[in-house]
Amino acid sequence: MFSSKDGRLLIEEVDFEEIVEKTGTPVYITSRKKLEENIRLFQESFGFARMLYAVKANNNLTIMKIFARNGFGADVFSLGELYLALLAGFDRNFILFNGNSKSDEEIEAGIKAGVKFSVDSLDELYTISEIAQNCGREVKIAFRVNPDISAETHPKIATGLKTSKFGIPAEQILEAYEAAVQAGAVVPVGIHCHIGSQIRDVEPFVHELEKMFEIAAELEKLGVRLEFLDMGGGFGIDYEGDGECRVEKFSQPIKKTLENGLQMLKSKPELWIEPGRSLVANTTILLTRVNAVKKAYKNFVAVDAGFNLLIRPAMYDSYHRVVVANKMEKPAEELYTIAGPICESGDILAKDRKLPKVKRGDYIAVFDAGAYGFAMSSQYNGRPRCAEVLVDGGLFHITREKETVGDLIARQRIPEELF
Amino acid sequence: MFSSKDGRLLIEEVDFEEIVEKTGTPVYITSRKKLEENIRLFQESFGFARMLYAVKANNNLTIMKIFARNGFGADVFSLGELYLALLAGFDRNFILFNGNSKSDEEIEAGIKAGVKFSVDSLDELYTISEIAQNCGREVKIAFRVNPDISAETHPKIATGLKTSKFGIPAEQILEAYEAAVQAGAVVPVGIHCHIGSQIRDVEPFVHELEKMFEIAAELEKLGVRLEFLDMGGGFGIDYEGDGECRVEKFSQPIKKTLENGLQMLKSKPELWIEPGRSLVANTTILLTRVNAVKKAYKNFVAVDAGFNLLIRPAMYDSYHRVVVANKMEKPAEELYTIAGPICESGDILAKDRKLPKVKRGDYIAVFDAGAYGFAMSSQYNGRPRCAEVLVDGGLFHITREKETVGDLIARQRIPEELF
Repeated sequence: MFSSKDGRLLIEEVDFEEIVEKTGTPVYITSRKKLEENIRLFQESFGFARMLYAVKANNNLTIMKIFARNGFGADVFSLGELYLALLAGFDRNFILFNGNSKSDEEIEAGIKAGVKFSVDSLDELYTISEIAQNCGREVKIAFRVNPDISAETHPKIATGLKTSKFGIPAEQILEAYEAAVQAGAVVPVGIHCHIGSQIRDVEPFVHELEKMFEIAAELEKLGVRLEFLDMGGGFGIDYEGDGECRVEKFSQPIKKTLENGLQMLKSKPELWIEPGRSLVANTTILLTRVNAVKKAYKNFVAVDAGFNLLIRPAMYDSYHRVVVANKMEKPAEELYTIAGPICESGDILAKDRKLPKVKRGDYIAVFDAGAYGFAMSSQYNGRPRCAEVLVDGGLFHITREKETVGDLIARQRIPEELF
Repeated sequence: MFSSKDGRLLIEEVDFEEIVEKTGTPVYITSRKKLEENIRLFQESFGFARMLYAVKANNNLTIMKIFARNGFGADVFSLGELYLALLAGFDRNFILFNGNSKSDEEIEAGIKAGVKFSVDSLDELYTISEIAQNCGREVKIAFRVNPDISAETHPKIATGLKTSKFGIPAEQILEAYEAAVQAGAVVPVGIHCHIGSQIRDVEPFVHELEKMFEIAAELEKLGVRLEFLDMGGGFGIDYEGDGECRVEKFSQPIKKTLENGLQMLKSKPELWIEPGRSLVANTTILLTRVNAVKKAYKNFVAVDAGFNLLIRPAMYDSYHRVVVANKMEKPAEELYTIAGPICESGDILAKDRKLPKVKRGDYIAVFDAGAYGFAMSSQYNGRPRCAEVLVDGGLFHITREKETVGDLIARQRIPEELF
């Protein structure tokens, strides 16, 4: 889906510069073919599970529509994501409203939309129960359980540790279900876990699912029969290598654990998973233009995209592959550090990469930028956000127009006396 | 400017809840009186210097207008910040276009606007010279020199280290000025440094200014006479204590260094400084509502603002003081950790703070949020950004209206075949 021809980067059949002529740089470019390939891979490997797309990874509506059309449910984390998921046409039976901090407004909107909730605390349970009763509705819920599982990833995104802000500690979870059975207008139908993001080993997932089955078996004794076990997402991709998620590596041991687990239960709950990054990261590049090159302590290449658009390297020390998009066949000659335009030393997209000789006017493509890329973008340093593009064979569509400086002030109002 | 009455937080004379009734939560609230107090403090202490407000800290137009009216220049870092600075009415003779990566479009706009440039590399010098000649204009420039000074602060915002992406190494700087003299349409009139942000000691600044004078003296020998020495900003505030910047602590040693330095020179360049954080941080609170409280590994308070709105704690481990805005006179009883609604474990606004007993529906005010707060905000997790408010005595003005979910899709376009 990303290849080169005559030394130039192609996205499917489109030369990158055709896109730049319409959108300028920076620009996020997604390959539809790659996206659909990932969807097929997951459908083949995880045929035994129901898949909820984790909207937080990338909430571009066009991408979301493609997931909805392919039968995915949606994991949403806010009123905004719920709104986008409904617009994109996800089946509301398989929209799960997640999160550790939902406002009354968000809860009411979710109840009225008829989606299910992952409940993070007893306090939240009672809020949901109260609002549901006021709305005259019944809500299906799962509890988010904190399984106390350590998975090797960046501490900021390890969400299943005992110390994490998410979920109800495993030792309090039965009590929570008992409270749910007592509370009005809520029906406990699931259990939800999520141990983190960008996890490359399958063992923590197996361990997680085993814990969930143990809890489900305890719940059966209390008379609570579950419709689903949602083990969340977090399947990592190979950022340092080819950008792929080895889906089979995860799906096969999970399938086995599921089969074993189901034998412990009388009910036959569905397995739900919530992949995000593993579906979208490698579908997308961030294309950026070189403004200047200098030899200081290192060779620095100053480009027009920084952590305003892709915060992962600055925030999590993440690695992204880069290429010089207009010099794909030139030999790598020198070490370069790719620096964004933001006012902080931490604004480095890539460190010490061997690349062909780089000059002002060249283009750098940053790979695997489809997850937590645009989704985390800001207007920091007064920079309007860039366009997003979907390539489809020999055509491309602008799926998000770039902002202008006008967007920086559209909602501002100066008090009259300061006019 | 922030006080309490009957146990409730007042911003000047306004009860916080009067504001919440209009804007909802979260909301950024700025005290105009505090802002004007800071301006006076800097004017009194740094009367010997010209002050350029560092727009990157907070680019709310209303706040920028107040700086412009008080005679400040502006340090801008992008086309967007330039645009805002011109709208706010800053004198363009004292607008300096900074940054390590300026696009051709940005350079052309700056040249046409008649502002000065801080030039980050020889490569950029030639780009500016070329564009200026094409525009038939002459541009006044300074070079950003990397002084190789270590200042104690977070590594992501220490910008004067040898290893930083910013500036021209001191040992190459004379050569750069010689190149500028030769290049067409550029006139070197200044020298620019910036050693970092949130620095609490004055020594690194003294050391920096001494280095700048050494370079200026060398430049005089080459026949280059400077109009200004811009030592940047970076004056820290007391986040852990009262939020104040001890301005005198910085200004007095700097004044002395300036007086000594000027004796080395034939010309009498102005001293320029670029304060940002120290002028705006403590003028503003982020007010957020409690959605839920739970006892898990710790006591977690889930609020409706997270690193989507205030990224400093998650990104730099920054400390911000917090209070329970509706329980200002209640005794602190328990340790609480304040967690935002974002999908990452790192989304913690404040750790282990002793506070009065907190309940759903309470309000938490986060102090010193006026710098690098809204300026770095995103719509991560599909969260529209919040309102900003300026309080003025007993009145308040909404200076930025809150976004709605409509803003998440306003620029999106779904390809027809996916309608």
